[in-house]
Amino acid sequence: MNQDYIKADEWSIVEEGFEKDRVKSSESLFSIGNGAMGQRANFEEHYSGATFQGSYIAGVYYPDKTRVGWWKNGYPEYFAKVLNAPNWIGIDVVVNGEQLDLNSCKSVSNFRRELNMQEGWYQRSFEVELQNGVALAIRSTRFLSLDLDELGAIRYEIQVLNQETQVSVQPYLDSGITNEDSNWDDKFWNTTAISSNKNRAYIESHTMKTNFGVCTYMQSKVYLEGKELSEEPSCTTDELSVKNTYTQTVAKGQKLTVVKFAGYTVDRNHKTDALKSAADEVLDKASELGFEALMGQQKASWGKIWEMSDITIEGDAKAQQGIRFNIFQLNQTYLGKDSRLNIGPKGFTGEKYGGSTYWDTEAYCLPFYMATKNQEVAWSLLEYRYHHLDKAIENAEKLGFANGAALYPMVTMNGEECHNEWEITFEEIHRNGAIAFAIYNYHRFTGDYSYVPKMGLEVLIGIARFWHLRVNFSEDKQKYVLLGVTGPNEYENNVNNNWYTNYLAKWCIDYTLEQLEKVKTEYASDFDRIYTKTKLSSEETADWKKVADNMFFPYSEKYEVYLQQDGFLDKELVKVQDLDKSERPVNQKWSWDRILRSPYIKQADVLQGFYFFEDHFTNKDLERHFNFYEPFTVHESSLSPCVHSIQAAKLGRMEQAYTFYLRTSRLDLDDYNKEVEEGLHITSMAGTWMSIVEGFGGMRIAEDLLQFTPQIPNQWDAYSFKINFRDQILTVTVNKQGSTYQLSGDQTISIKVNNDLVKLQPGQSVAV
Amino acid sequence: MNQDYIKADEWSIVEEGFEKDRVKSSESLFSIGNGAMGQRANFEEHYSGATFQGSYIAGVYYPDKTRVGWWKNGYPEYFAKVLNAPNWIGIDVVVNGEQLDLNSCKSVSNFRRELNMQEGWYQRSFEVELQNGVALAIRSTRFLSLDLDELGAIRYEIQVLNQETQVSVQPYLDSGITNEDSNWDDKFWNTTAISSNKNRAYIESHTMKTNFGVCTYMQSKVYLEGKELSEEPSCTTDELSVKNTYTQTVAKGQKLTVVKFAGYTVDRNHKTDALKSAADEVLDKASELGFEALMGQQKASWGKIWEMSDITIEGDAKAQQGIRFNIFQLNQTYLGKDSRLNIGPKGFTGEKYGGSTYWDTEAYCLPFYMATKNQEVAWSLLEYRYHHLDKAIENAEKLGFANGAALYPMVTMNGEECHNEWEITFEEIHRNGAIAFAIYNYHRFTGDYSYVPKMGLEVLIGIARFWHLRVNFSEDKQKYVLLGVTGPNEYENNVNNNWYTNYLAKWCIDYTLEQLEKVKTEYASDFDRIYTKTKLSSEETADWKKVADNMFFPYSEKYEVYLQQDGFLDKELVKVQDLDKSERPVNQKWSWDRILRSPYIKQADVLQGFYFFEDHFTNKDLERHFNFYEPFTVHESSLSPCVHSIQAAKLGRMEQAYTFYLRTSRLDLDDYNKEVEEGLHITSMAGTWMSIVEGFGGMRIAEDLLQFTPQIPNQWDAYSFKINFRDQILTVTVNKQGSTYQLSGDQTISIKVNNDLVKLQPGQSVAV
Repeated sequence: MNQDYIKADEWSIVEEGFEKDRVKSSESLFSIGNGAMGQRANFEEHYSGATFQGSYIAGVYYPDKTRVGWWKNGYPEYFAKVLNAPNWIGIDVVVNGEQLDLNSCKSVSNFRRELNMQEGWYQRSFEVELQNGVALAIRSTRFLSLDLDELGAIRYEIQVLNQETQVSVQPYLDSGITNEDSNWDDKFWNTTAISSNKNRAYIESHTMKTNFGVCTYMQSKVYLEGKELSEEPSCTTDELSVKNTYTQTVAKGQKLTVVKFAGYTVDRNHKTDALKSAADEVLDKASELGFEALMGQQKASWGKIWEMSDITIEGDAKAQQGIRFNIFQLNQTYLGKDSRLNIGPKGFTGEKYGGSTYWDTEAYCLPFYMATKNQEVAWSLLEYRYHHLDKAIENAEKLGFANGAALYPMVTMNGEECHNEWEITFEEIHRNGAIAFAIYNYHRFTGDYSYVPKMGLEVLIGIARFWHLRVNFSEDKQKYVLLGVTGPNEYENNVNNNWYTNYLAKWCIDYTLEQLEKVKTEYASDFDRIYTKTKLSSEETADWKKVADNMFFPYSEKYEVYLQQDGFLDKELVKVQDLDKSERPVNQKWSWDRILRSPYIKQADVLQGFYFFEDHFTNKDLERHFNFYEPFTVHESSLSPCVHSIQAAKLGRMEQAYTFYLRTSRLDLDDYNKEVEEGLHITSMAGTWMSIVEGFGGMRIAEDLLQFTPQIPNQWDAYSFKINFRDQILTVTVNKQGSTYQLSGDQTISIKVNNDLVKLQPGQSVAV
Repeated sequence: MNQDYIKADEWSIVEEGFEKDRVKSSESLFSIGNGAMGQRANFEEHYSGATFQGSYIAGVYYPDKTRVGWWKNGYPEYFAKVLNAPNWIGIDVVVNGEQLDLNSCKSVSNFRRELNMQEGWYQRSFEVELQNGVALAIRSTRFLSLDLDELGAIRYEIQVLNQETQVSVQPYLDSGITNEDSNWDDKFWNTTAISSNKNRAYIESHTMKTNFGVCTYMQSKVYLEGKELSEEPSCTTDELSVKNTYTQTVAKGQKLTVVKFAGYTVDRNHKTDALKSAADEVLDKASELGFEALMGQQKASWGKIWEMSDITIEGDAKAQQGIRFNIFQLNQTYLGKDSRLNIGPKGFTGEKYGGSTYWDTEAYCLPFYMATKNQEVAWSLLEYRYHHLDKAIENAEKLGFANGAALYPMVTMNGEECHNEWEITFEEIHRNGAIAFAIYNYHRFTGDYSYVPKMGLEVLIGIARFWHLRVNFSEDKQKYVLLGVTGPNEYENNVNNNWYTNYLAKWCIDYTLEQLEKVKTEYASDFDRIYTKTKLSSEETADWKKVADNMFFPYSEKYEVYLQQDGFLDKELVKVQDLDKSERPVNQKWSWDRILRSPYIKQADVLQGFYFFEDHFTNKDLERHFNFYEPFTVHESSLSPCVHSIQAAKLGRMEQAYTFYLRTSRLDLDDYNKEVEEGLHITSMAGTWMSIVEGFGGMRIAEDLLQFTPQIPNQWDAYSFKINFRDQILTVTVNKQGSTYQLSGDQTISIKVNNDLVKLQPGQSVAV
């Protein structure tokens, strides 16, 4: 059952009506974030019903001890856990002595949530009758400022509807929070100081082990009918929290408004002993501007984001809402300001997957950020891995690879591996390939080669070295083989010669050798520096080449396809369509061994390689492989449908492409996997963007040109998207009649549409 | 570094001298047990140094919650943990106000431990000078009674050496115990009542979750110079413990002796509300006999065990000690009285491996118990699995196999799977084969077929059904294949067509079909009952046959060997001897992925199959396979050397056979793996026995006859062993001149020696 309670709306996510059993799901869907922090849509006032509290600070994590049944050498000592941070949103409300609580009140009506994606704010409004008969109308509006990214702002309005009432409002901070996934009752935060000053208050705390210092702060002002109360609040503190209390008699029809500015200052950005004063600086700025002006800034800042990244869809409001939700969430999660941060699979919307960095960033997110931001953002994403190169070399050493070989971690916070299942950590080594591919992809898209001599080549050398050491020569096959890997299809473990991994390994070596030549010729001093630093030799690179030139690729003569891995044809090749529906999703219905020996594919594996290296294969090749593998693909990874949508579109199968698109675009809004309460699938949202731009729009970079082969799903009247191509903004509009290309920039550029060259002048619009 | 502090002695394990850093190792080596309970060699008196406390009750375990990073469908909910049980051995000693503690006293001299294996007792003696100058000579003797198997007896003697002294002795019981491996600070025991009555005391408690009820009890008597003290002790209790205190002035040279009878009564054997009265019954019996008489019984009972199971070795005291230690420990662990119990890999000597049942029982232990006990003991071991058949069927259902297919657990306490790594639990399915093989082996050895129609056939049907469902037909190979398994060589995971597993699967089906025919003909009513109960049909058995007749076996034409699994020849085939020593043991030096893609074999895999099914292959076959696989075998499982020793002997390579024998026989005494402090390797001790009897002695059952091809290692002058073959006790003595066979029984039997028939009369001795 899909939830299906989100109202279709082009610019907003809207929920109407209060249902206790969807509170946790809505807390995910209405999450807000600003790249530096994030907040689930928890209620400000006390709620005794089922809820999943979540306030997250970018880059703040906890290294939880790895615990496994049988410890295997090489396991990381910890896995990273994203931490629920101290609560900054809380505002308790007590009305004639009764605490406002939507779980225990007499009735709730006109409950409505809106996440306004165009302007970047979240609002919740409702009317409530308390057990004591008092009726209130509440409206709470909040946002995380894009401009002051340490600041959250809340305006909480209480109108008394039926009688004169004593209302007590209590804005508070609370560091007595827990993690949903804390199995072992570990404590994650140490609170060191709680203080207050008039209408401001502060909790200073740091995380255990990692010792991240955080000051959680707030300032509150309360207004009766728009006029600020003159008395200062009474302040109460206990060991873990601080609360300001304002008590006021409110006449029938009158409105009491709390404006709370709050958030975190973190010692990633400030000295530890200056966190409190930094908080005061933020509060001073915010106070000077006030809630309304801050809200104005917020609208303007989101306006700028949309200007560059919006996709419009005509004739399908749900599709429109879906794609905007995806673009909105990606921008809430990562804005490219800080190359120490990255994009966790759940962003700031839940705890799962540890908020850490996966290969999702390079394989799925980079294209989105390259095309919708200035190239500095993509550079930041690449630089993140460059900063982690030493750790990747250490990681490879832990697994027995010397000589500067680099194995990037499967999951990381700080460059160290922090995932602890051998079949993933030790074997899903294809991630190294995605990181190299991103360097190639960045150059291809931006035309900027400077990253390679400056940083990228060192990364490539570490990666090439890893592949060279990771293969072994099979006397039996007289080829180099890669034994014991897990491919992108995680429904196979410890297989031999996963085609995708073998292909990437060969490509990485070839690409690195090419870049070495190019840098040697064109950036001699960089080359010398790197050659010396990495102690490279021509004997070593000759050894690499031997591996690349003699890599084994499993192939079936019968089916004329590369095999996903050795022995794939031994499986019982029953197609997904012939599986009883009751057997699916197999990851919920089947035991692991059954999944492993089945032919079922979690997400694109061979086809992921065909996606990356499209130009290495003919359309006929693609068709044969798509026809062979897709029927065994269960798409139980959120990252699967997008690649298939792009390839189906390429093969002219628009109906199928559209079906795949639907699976990815409203995955969370319609809760296909019945798990949205755990948080949103952030990284796969970039895949949705790719489905439209690369799939329907057919955008590619080839011959150093932006190229399009636009198509449109039957269900749509028109769609448009924007591409920032080397600082020129191109708006592409596609409808049933054709496509239009409008350039806003300062240079003439040439693009290809359906393989025909089209010249575009700045300001000009060309219809094809 | 081997510990090498155990003195060579034919009948005893002896340690001399007190070294704090070997206390934990000695606690393992000097463990005592009687099949119903076990006790590490912890000190009776307080010890503040490093110690690993362990008191264990057979069959008492705790189902700890399975915790893994990525939960996979089909995982068991818990893994079994062997529980440290309340302390029954404690006797605190306070001398002129100072507590006796070997860790903090002024000096310890003449410290000596002896585990007398011939008579079944453990003694520790030493002289000690306390900080207050008092000098004592202490001697403590204890045993776990074979006759009253709920009883432990301790005689603790304190002689005051240098001055008149006030000695306070405090026998106590304590349920405030913990598990070494309790990562999560869980509590495992609930103590419900503590009581005392004169010189007796009781703690009633039960385990959490499993709710095993246990009464830990004691009775103490104290004697001055052999005369019992007249006063009753003062009794003190707290929440978790109870202590009796006797205080006495002891003159220089006088001896104070505590006799403590204590132990457990368990609600597996008594009603829960009768545990205390059962304890009193044991104490009454013990008191009536007294310590000396009980000790006499103990010597007599162990004498009977040795009569049937002793192996003597002449000319090599360390080898003699080693083999007796192994036989002694096996008998301390399992005596076959209770078919609800089984043989944990660490017996009662530590917590590791959860004290649970593995395939070790069928593959390694059964031959020992068949040959050294009455056949009822072996029957009990088979029956254990019959009782678990329903659970094995449930276990298979959890993994998606319907229709009465049975998958026995890899690790179990009560029939449920309780191990939680997918590569073991879901994939190491060859255990099913060992369980079927044990049925065949029992019939072969004992000549008793009655187990098959009564119980065994149902087990076989469940197992055959499992294999039939677990294979799939490979269109590519046109054969049935077994994908995604882990063989006995656990240094491979998730491989396809592990030869050993495939061979066992085929054999199980063939054997089951044969037994069905035989039972149909010879036990018609049993057949009808089973046929109806299992809803078998001739269509189903025909399907099974198709699988058995068309099973795939990976084979190398080049090497003329069966391949351990598909793709084995893709590995880098560097032999163990060519590995740098610093790389070993690989399980400590290498990361898991490196081990997996290496050719290194943890324990016999293909060769394990050649061991079970020796008569299916020629000696030339064995030689080829041994020559191919042994050089890649690192023997990092304690179960590996024995099989290789037997096969090396068969191939006439006695030097190699002897080398393997040494690795297994003193594994714990010389602490090869530097881990003896965790407990002893009980199940591999049965492998040591096999190395002598089947390896050097060449004992086999073939043509329904006991057969021998005796050889003797150069290093020995002679050796002898006893075999209970169908109630006739045969003593085989081998020396450099030849071998002698002496029958003590009531029937004439024929045996074969070096393939020649030899007739033996009762009482007669025949030299060959």
